[in-house]
Amino acid sequence: MLIVQKFGGSSVANAERVYNVAKRVAETYKKGNDVIVVLSAQGDTTDDLITKAKEISKNPPKREMDMLLATGEQQSVALMAMALSELGYPCVSLNAYQVGMITTSAYSNARLKKIKPDRIRRELDRKNIVLVTGFQGMNRFDDITTLGRGGSDTTAVAIAAALNADQCEIYTDVDGVYTADPRVVKNARKLNEITYSEMLELASLGAKVLHNRSVELAKKYNVELVVRSSLTNAEGTVVKEACKMERMLISGVAGDDEIARVSLIGLKDTPGKAFDIFSTLAKKNVNVDIILQSIGRDNTKDISFTIPDTSLADAKEVIEQNMERWGTKSVDYNENLAKVSIVGAGMVANTGVASKMFEAMYDSDINIHMISTSEIKISILIDKKEMHKAMNAIHEAFNLAD
Amino acid sequence: MLIVQKFGGSSVANAERVYNVAKRVAETYKKGNDVIVVLSAQGDTTDDLITKAKEISKNPPKREMDMLLATGEQQSVALMAMALSELGYPCVSLNAYQVGMITTSAYSNARLKKIKPDRIRRELDRKNIVLVTGFQGMNRFDDITTLGRGGSDTTAVAIAAALNADQCEIYTDVDGVYTADPRVVKNARKLNEITYSEMLELASLGAKVLHNRSVELAKKYNVELVVRSSLTNAEGTVVKEACKMERMLISGVAGDDEIARVSLIGLKDTPGKAFDIFSTLAKKNVNVDIILQSIGRDNTKDISFTIPDTSLADAKEVIEQNMERWGTKSVDYNENLAKVSIVGAGMVANTGVASKMFEAMYDSDINIHMISTSEIKISILIDKKEMHKAMNAIHEAFNLAD
Repeated sequence: MLIVQKFGGSSVANAERVYNVAKRVAETYKKGNDVIVVLSAQGDTTDDLITKAKEISKNPPKREMDMLLATGEQQSVALMAMALSELGYPCVSLNAYQVGMITTSAYSNARLKKIKPDRIRRELDRKNIVLVTGFQGMNRFDDITTLGRGGSDTTAVAIAAALNADQCEIYTDVDGVYTADPRVVKNARKLNEITYSEMLELASLGAKVLHNRSVELAKKYNVELVVRSSLTNAEGTVVKEACKMERMLISGVAGDDEIARVSLIGLKDTPGKAFDIFSTLAKKNVNVDIILQSIGRDNTKDISFTIPDTSLADAKEVIEQNMERWGTKSVDYNENLAKVSIVGAGMVANTGVASKMFEAMYDSDINIHMISTSEIKISILIDKKEMHKAMNAIHEAFNLAD
Repeated sequence: MLIVQKFGGSSVANAERVYNVAKRVAETYKKGNDVIVVLSAQGDTTDDLITKAKEISKNPPKREMDMLLATGEQQSVALMAMALSELGYPCVSLNAYQVGMITTSAYSNARLKKIKPDRIRRELDRKNIVLVTGFQGMNRFDDITTLGRGGSDTTAVAIAAALNADQCEIYTDVDGVYTADPRVVKNARKLNEITYSEMLELASLGAKVLHNRSVELAKKYNVELVVRSSLTNAEGTVVKEACKMERMLISGVAGDDEIARVSLIGLKDTPGKAFDIFSTLAKKNVNVDIILQSIGRDNTKDISFTIPDTSLADAKEVIEQNMERWGTKSVDYNENLAKVSIVGAGMVANTGVASKMFEAMYDSDINIHMISTSEIKISILIDKKEMHKAMNAIHEAFNLAD
């Protein structure tokens, strides 16, 4: 079997943990498998590098930021190669250029375009364990890019797809996908399996197990993912196309408090306004999540939307440059909100799911600021400080612990 | 003019120093020059990375060590690009792959083979200040190599040669080349100019201003070097082919206490023995400096040689593997010696230089263990603890302060 294993930054944070991962990788290799390992930067390395950059410039060029940050993963793979060598296993570390990990040019948020499989194949043929830098790529100018959030998961899935791997294991500090964050909801339950679609909704809603980009890619190329713990030997959660029939209505509840809401108030109500606003934001790589448009008065309307709080600075810049052209009366930014969502493939065929969720909020005396629904999820915006209370209330209302 | 400027690790150790260098680079650029800047890793970065590696493996694979260490310079160039951008100057950082810095495959001690000038030229044409990682390269397998000691100086000179730069400025923490290390000899005097040959001897003898590899390369391609301080605006020392006629006999005295002496005692006296020993050592990249062979008794001989103390572990390994084959009776390792040398292009035509040096040692009651001479230098091995005393005695004996 060809197995891709991805380990996050906390799994390789120090020499001891590097060895723990090395031993786990070696176990897989000893069974006769070809193994490709994708690694993130060690522990706080990325944060430390960001701090260094911010000491020099509040708003450093993104190209140079990527050049800087890419060093973190390169250190991880080199150190892991040293540990595996010390244990007596043949291995080689490769960075994005050496792998041929081609991306778009959008520095700090690049998309993978192509992976040249030749070098990895050659190393596997030599029976080397191949250690690949996650999170990074090269654009057509031969410049280093990074993939943004969830980049290393995406790298792992993309490599699994490009090399037709039999399995892609994503190792995290939890032992699978839960009905809710176990740190928030004490009796949250581990799921044995979940569909790509449900996982997508959970991931994009702030269940920090897998990033949606990696799940989207897995779904597109039908790469079976296994989410499991790097600390235990527990089975983990399989993410795949379809799950067993007897699945529960709701698979989980997720909370996300790293969001910001932007409200553009008193926009002139002319055609193409929404397109103008959101395409301009997209050009700045601001990912907009929930959008809510309400008709205002006097031929004006209000548009509210949520974005990751890390994109707020970029969004503010775009808005300040364009608000006159858009004819916006005023803008409101709110960083004190959280999004809580329930997800379940069974939801679409069942009525009463939304009302049960709202009832749980009413019973807990939590005010709902915005609502957004899709076929397999319902999201609400509430005050940030009430997120944990809301998640527990919903988890209980839907009996997710059973 | 096209000017290459190289700054060492201490010059870019923190944000403040990065800005100091950025301002100096900007000054050169503002005068209308094309500027290429070569940087080392920040301050203790390389040492910190080595510590990390040693926590994992006492003897990590050199390929992986290079993969790890190369990240240090990449961080430096990215941070410098951020500082220059913040100051409003167009710039771009490039690593060894992006520059096309092709080297041999000898990890940790690679030699430069070729620099593809295209990318740098293109960036200069766009009026960018080009920031290049020192110390590193890529071999023909697309793997990262490092150049070993003095690597960043070598990178700077190689780029200056490849792009026909008008000047190559090496910035250090001293303001030029001195008649002796000013920290050791208080009244050491700064030289305005020095020949490549003299600089070569001084560099290889432990005057830590310029590494001999970079000077050799500069001599070969006739790149005029300027050694100057990154802290002051002092003129510095020009290193070039020939200097003014009225030059002094002796240009300087140098000390090196980072050496070890190896003595192979009771070798069977058969032809090709020396060739065998030193070619075997060379294969392990052990650079041998002074060699002294003495006829022993009973058809045996002794061979002593000095090496950098950092190569002692490698040398011991080679010797232990081969001493039976060589027919060596015993081996002696001595790390308590230092080498003190005087250098001067005028020395060859003058008698009495050696005897004046030995006299100075005699007057200072310093015992000489080994002597080695060339056309422009005389080196002696003495006890390590007497190195500073010896340097001062020689400096005074030759009136180098005047």
